Amino acid sequence: MSDDKGLTVKKNEDFSQWYTQVVQKAELADIRYNVKGFVVFRPWAVLIMNKMFQLLEQELEKKGHQPALFPALIPESNFKKEAEHVEGFLPEVFWVTEAGGEGEKIDERLALRPTSETAMYQMFALWIRSWRDLPFKIYQRCQVWRYEGKATRPFIRSREFYWIETHNAFATLEEAEKQVQEDMETTDNVIHKEYAIPFLFFQRPEHDKFAGAVHTYAADTLMPDGKVLQLPSTHLLGQNFSKSFEIKFVDKNGESKYVWQTCYGPAVSRIIAAVISMHGDNKGLVLPPTIAPIQVIIIPIITSKENTEIVLAKCKEILESLEKAGVSPKVDADAERTPGWKFNYWELKGVPLRIEIGPRDIRSGQVVIVRRDNGAKQFVKENEVVNRVKEALEGIQKSLSEKAYNFLNDHLYDSQDYDEVKKILADKGGLVRINWCGLEECAEEMKNETNGGVIRGTLLGKNEEAKGNCIRCGNTSTQVVYISKQY
Amino acid sequence: MSDDKGLTVKKNEDFSQWYTQVVQKAELADIRYNVKGFVVFRPWAVLIMNKMFQLLEQELEKKGHQPALFPALIPESNFKKEAEHVEGFLPEVFWVTEAGGEGEKIDERLALRPTSETAMYQMFALWIRSWRDLPFKIYQRCQVWRYEGKATRPFIRSREFYWIETHNAFATLEEAEKQVQEDMETTDNVIHKEYAIPFLFFQRPEHDKFAGAVHTYAADTLMPDGKVLQLPSTHLLGQNFSKSFEIKFVDKNGESKYVWQTCYGPAVSRIIAAVISMHGDNKGLVLPPTIAPIQVIIIPIITSKENTEIVLAKCKEILESLEKAGVSPKVDADAERTPGWKFNYWELKGVPLRIEIGPRDIRSGQVVIVRRDNGAKQFVKENEVVNRVKEALEGIQKSLSEKAYNFLNDHLYDSQDYDEVKKILADKGGLVRINWCGLEECAEEMKNETNGGVIRGTLLGKNEEAKGNCIRCGNTSTQVVYISKQY
Repeated sequence: MSDDKGLTVKKNEDFSQWYTQVVQKAELADIRYNVKGFVVFRPWAVLIMNKMFQLLEQELEKKGHQPALFPALIPESNFKKEAEHVEGFLPEVFWVTEAGGEGEKIDERLALRPTSETAMYQMFALWIRSWRDLPFKIYQRCQVWRYEGKATRPFIRSREFYWIETHNAFATLEEAEKQVQEDMETTDNVIHKEYAIPFLFFQRPEHDKFAGAVHTYAADTLMPDGKVLQLPSTHLLGQNFSKSFEIKFVDKNGESKYVWQTCYGPAVSRIIAAVISMHGDNKGLVLPPTIAPIQVIIIPIITSKENTEIVLAKCKEILESLEKAGVSPKVDADAERTPGWKFNYWELKGVPLRIEIGPRDIRSGQVVIVRRDNGAKQFVKENEVVNRVKEALEGIQKSLSEKAYNFLNDHLYDSQDYDEVKKILADKGGLVRINWCGLEECAEEMKNETNGGVIRGTLLGKNEEAKGNCIRCGNTSTQVVYISKQY
Repeated sequence: MSDDKGLTVKKNEDFSQWYTQVVQKAELADIRYNVKGFVVFRPWAVLIMNKMFQLLEQELEKKGHQPALFPALIPESNFKKEAEHVEGFLPEVFWVTEAGGEGEKIDERLALRPTSETAMYQMFALWIRSWRDLPFKIYQRCQVWRYEGKATRPFIRSREFYWIETHNAFATLEEAEKQVQEDMETTDNVIHKEYAIPFLFFQRPEHDKFAGAVHTYAADTLMPDGKVLQLPSTHLLGQNFSKSFEIKFVDKNGESKYVWQTCYGPAVSRIIAAVISMHGDNKGLVLPPTIAPIQVIIIPIITSKENTEIVLAKCKEILESLEKAGVSPKVDADAERTPGWKFNYWELKGVPLRIEIGPRDIRSGQVVIVRRDNGAKQFVKENEVVNRVKEALEGIQKSLSEKAYNFLNDHLYDSQDYDEVKKILADKGGLVRINWCGLEECAEEMKNETNGGVIRGTLLGKNEEAKGNCIRCGNTSTQVVYISKQY
């Protein structure tokens, strides 16, 4: 346990400093590791990420993806097979060039995977033979490494991060397009419904696609400071890679064809940054019950040596009844700490519910339940504890989700006035709907002139029609897009 | 699904070839990845390893270990802090020396972790301050890389493998020694009781310790060809690393002291080799129910279009009743394959139980249950399916465990005659109990003269007393040890 005191910064006064403090004081990550851009993920964060991974993996397996593990090292020659891909990723690669004590040179440089297309697809070419082998849907839970120039912020951006990448092959373009839809559904089912993080799904502009993709779609959420954080993206790869890696199948008519591919990459170690940021408050983390390693912390209020045993016994009884009901509780029986210290500690850690049990409560056959998200306190009869706890957990989940959704919704703007757009992005942040000509150069200028505003793309499934001119260059606008600052 | 036929080699005639075929035909690993010593782990193996990891992680968390994730890259200067450690591991390190498109040199070489002591312990020095922070018990689930010269065999030996490493710090030597005992208990609870793999626990000879350890203890199991495979080892590190990395705590009297450390490393991707080898038979894998991704495969026997629906409905009903009872079943309803093909396929994959359901069975209110391990077939009344399935799964688990245990036991020999020892190791393999002088040179000579016989160490907890002379050099023997060939 940490002896550090609680947060000393208010979230709405200095979000950046608040974030730094939460990460450190709730013991989520340590930035003092001595390789630039690499952080250590501490137990509480790993326990949360494990829950997040589990929910994602369950959903993916339900949808027919199978887990695999590919080597972390990719030969340079593989890496260079798809022209656009290599151009996009080459600047971000860490290279293994030596091995053994003497630093003996390796024949061919080996890339530490920044993403696994070029590790996987040569194997796809060996495994996929006939229409019977399709659809072929693989996922890998792993870490990847990217030598990025931008400053490191734990979880938000670092040179090593943890994700799932799914890689899929289909007989037809239509099926591949359907997979993109399915990935969006997965994103909604898990990231929205389970992690309580709202997002908008965009089709990225041509100039901002994944290197090697035909189209890139991505979910953006809005952070409390009005900047956008990209959550999973899903890529329609078409036949770009299947042609480079010769991934062919024989269809039912005996014809040999290239497969159509997609990939999808939810970065759990990045998404947790949204969880921390969106739900947390001035006391620390607030965890959605679905991903809280401990959902209920039970704190014995011991007032004398005589009642120690009876209070601890009651705590254990409540613990067991909650466990039986599928809830994850824990009793904090540390005799060296006061109840007050424990209240603060577990609030900082974001445990959704607290139960207090003291001798007086036992005499009146009740316990005290306190919600982490709103501080609401209620006295509950012992025999109603399980039901009330379940209700409260559902209530918290719902309320966190709504709050985050409302925040996103309250920061959606509509403007055809470039000066107004600049002002919104500078003052409040958020996403502004604008008309845009579609040209990369215009987007680049806009980024400079708005001090970092980036075109997120067109909102998926909305078919928003452009009715005016590009807000910046005045040319005919081809699309209605959203602009925002980003992480 | 694979269209390859079943195994063409008998396990007891050519174990090595049998192993190669099982790994390939049950689609466990693919050795065709184009970096030497690296293999691809395919879905069925990953699903099994995930179960294995889960059981280990549960046990470790129950025993107070907390998960963490440390960077995969370790600066050369860290790596060199503990003299013996660096000497032992330096020959096995892959080095990252360049990054970015231009192959820009990195200031300091970064080691791809071959093990994580030197990544973790600098952080321990920051986190551990007082007696309050002890015991400190961390575990990491990750992969490690070792540039080894020996030939690759999937799972048994490769340059990238998946494990858990626990790293622990204590206030006293006694507590550290207790942790070693606890690690043995963990090994027994998980590897023996859950994976059904028997082993002997040895204290390794001085010359065969982990680089940087005071003592090394390791579990050895016996493979079907009479060679030993090392399973987890646990190391008493003493204060070797705490002194190199300055990991100190202030005790209750205000005195500053170095911590005592241990570490423990169950390599799941290696232990699965023992699972494949010990339990498999001439039809393929045989999985212990505790780690089978699918415990029961339900196969509809459809004889006409008319009865398709009723048979599939019954399969689904049985599936659901099993799921409700906590069993993991699957219905193989693939209309393109015959029941016979499916029987072979799922036998190859090692699914412990098969249920067959046809129209005639439905009319007589029964199903057919077939055990994978012994082929035993029984007709079971529908309302008894759940109980009989549970019984059968327990029976299989017990029987696999006993069979493996008996094999190990039947291959333990006792000899004080060096020629006899040579003959046993050459003919049948197994472990031979001998007297040994304790000198490394003598062990080296023995290894040469017995064509690979290695001293495993003294059997833990037995205090076997040496009563004669070293079987090789004739000097006074200091210890009773076991010798065997090894992987």
